[in-house]
Amino acid sequence: METRTEISSLGEFGLIDHLTKNIEFSNASSILGVGDDAAVIDHFGKQTVITTDMLLEGVHFDLMYTPLKHLGYKSVVVNLSDIYAMNATPTQITLNIAVSNRFSVEALEEFYEGVYAACERYQVDLIGGDTSTSRSGFIISVTALGEVNPDQFVQRSTAQKGDLICVSGDLGGAFLGLTLLERERQIYLENPKIQPDLENEQYIVGRLLKPEARKDIIAFLAENEIRPTAMMDISDGLSSEILHICKQSSLGCVLYEEKIPIHEDSRMAAFKFGLDPTACALSGGEDYELLFTIAQSEYDKLVLNEQISVVGYMTDAAEGSHILTKGGNKFRITAQGWNAFKDQ
Amino acid sequence: METRTEISSLGEFGLIDHLTKNIEFSNASSILGVGDDAAVIDHFGKQTVITTDMLLEGVHFDLMYTPLKHLGYKSVVVNLSDIYAMNATPTQITLNIAVSNRFSVEALEEFYEGVYAACERYQVDLIGGDTSTSRSGFIISVTALGEVNPDQFVQRSTAQKGDLICVSGDLGGAFLGLTLLERERQIYLENPKIQPDLENEQYIVGRLLKPEARKDIIAFLAENEIRPTAMMDISDGLSSEILHICKQSSLGCVLYEEKIPIHEDSRMAAFKFGLDPTACALSGGEDYELLFTIAQSEYDKLVLNEQISVVGYMTDAAEGSHILTKGGNKFRITAQGWNAFKDQ
Repeated sequence: METRTEISSLGEFGLIDHLTKNIEFSNASSILGVGDDAAVIDHFGKQTVITTDMLLEGVHFDLMYTPLKHLGYKSVVVNLSDIYAMNATPTQITLNIAVSNRFSVEALEEFYEGVYAACERYQVDLIGGDTSTSRSGFIISVTALGEVNPDQFVQRSTAQKGDLICVSGDLGGAFLGLTLLERERQIYLENPKIQPDLENEQYIVGRLLKPEARKDIIAFLAENEIRPTAMMDISDGLSSEILHICKQSSLGCVLYEEKIPIHEDSRMAAFKFGLDPTACALSGGEDYELLFTIAQSEYDKLVLNEQISVVGYMTDAAEGSHILTKGGNKFRITAQGWNAFKDQ
Repeated sequence: METRTEISSLGEFGLIDHLTKNIEFSNASSILGVGDDAAVIDHFGKQTVITTDMLLEGVHFDLMYTPLKHLGYKSVVVNLSDIYAMNATPTQITLNIAVSNRFSVEALEEFYEGVYAACERYQVDLIGGDTSTSRSGFIISVTALGEVNPDQFVQRSTAQKGDLICVSGDLGGAFLGLTLLERERQIYLENPKIQPDLENEQYIVGRLLKPEARKDIIAFLAENEIRPTAMMDISDGLSSEILHICKQSSLGCVLYEEKIPIHEDSRMAAFKFGLDPTACALSGGEDYELLFTIAQSEYDKLVLNEQISVVGYMTDAAEGSHILTKGGNKFRITAQGWNAFKDQ
């Protein structure tokens, strides 16, 4: 009888670990491979940073409430975010798409309009890709390349004990935008005559549908000669990402609930939906903010930037990974967020 | 009323042209973009060549007769073939896959076994990618990078009048393998008790399921200091590909039917299926051989290699693109092959 292990038993990261654990490099130019936001290639001058991502209709996006132009823009931005998260500057992308005959040329033009808008905003060149037929919906695969001065890229595995944990912008908004749009979709499906109520929700809807990569933060860090000790982008929620840094750096951490940046509009939306804003920030994905650690000695340079919040610090691995709540409680951080409150 | 143009009215290449015609580069490092087998990036030393391709179940492959290991191998090789077709050496790949829960970990291991076998054979490193959920079948997107000495890459647009047209290996085998497997699949669906009859068909089945990229030809050209004037890989059939070179080089061509290399096993299979072997070579895809042009003065160096056939020469554009048959007839080459025999 053949063994059959369900993919679900490993989870996404477990599966990637499992499938890539025996890789050995053949080329000296392969500096960094699987296991970070992007891979690094040395090209005898600048180093090349490359990342890739696939987006599938019905899995990653719903065309019922995602305008194709926004989808094109976002498909590029989520990859550029990974390049910035390596402390690199994006330079080129390639784009593969597959579509069924449900889509017209005009629909694809709209999608590409968004792609080109992102390319222009971030000054990257679309340099290749292919287009195929799909039997089921829209499939997008983007690869982004970036450049970085030799060995200036920043990994996830290099945080130090005592380092400050920093977050750019604010968190939870994209998840609340998704919650809102999913709710409106449900109402619409039940009664198509009811118009969606998106009044005063532009902020959270924008966070979901048109995220930006934090080019400005990388520029600020460079201008002020602040070198993060570790960095990644926040695509799966703060809890999940800080645990990646802890695990890969063999450290623990403490986060302070009161320090976690949440936009006023996100807070209002959370209350409206009966959700805890902090839980949304910890477990909600797709904010595409940067999460990074810096030496405490860099703190004075950092406070110049209102777009950066210090939310905690790194500890020994033995101390575990915890969050201190406003009420004075201490909870263990889990990749699902701290909703469960199962143990300390 | 909104305009609606069907994608089918443009065709694949027309669609890509249409969607990418307004690209302007922002970075000096973007040397060559959309429109060739791969894009080129200058990295201040070696230049980087990058290509990407998507393969979808039910569109590009049928898992009923494609072993997953072979699929993994082929997914890599078809991209490496594009890198070689630029006269470059592949160095790294990234791989995105999406699968439904129909697939087990063991199934994916098998797929990756093929990926790694190709990586080892061609000495390339898998350096990134992601894995997602699919609601419908297996989706694969590979990006390959390669390196080339500055400006030694070979495009499709640089053939010269009078150049010899060369083809590596032999053509039509993969298409005949596909024809055979599709026929066996049909027989199986009609009567599952009948076992497939693949006796003596290893060659054509192998051509389809386990193609190789022509690393050896690129090495031979380098060793003998032969610089092709134009080059591409043959993934869509000789007719379609030579027309790309003609169009992009603003030239015409003459091919000689009797010079087109066809393996004896392919010829036998074609006769068995009632197909014309030459038509299979011209219009059948997926052979992944190299098509290139060289100056006539290089001919003496070329004849050393039995794996290279000279099949014709480049002419003025005004003379059109034709094939001279064994019977002495002259037919215009069309992207669908010369089956139609509609005009000269």
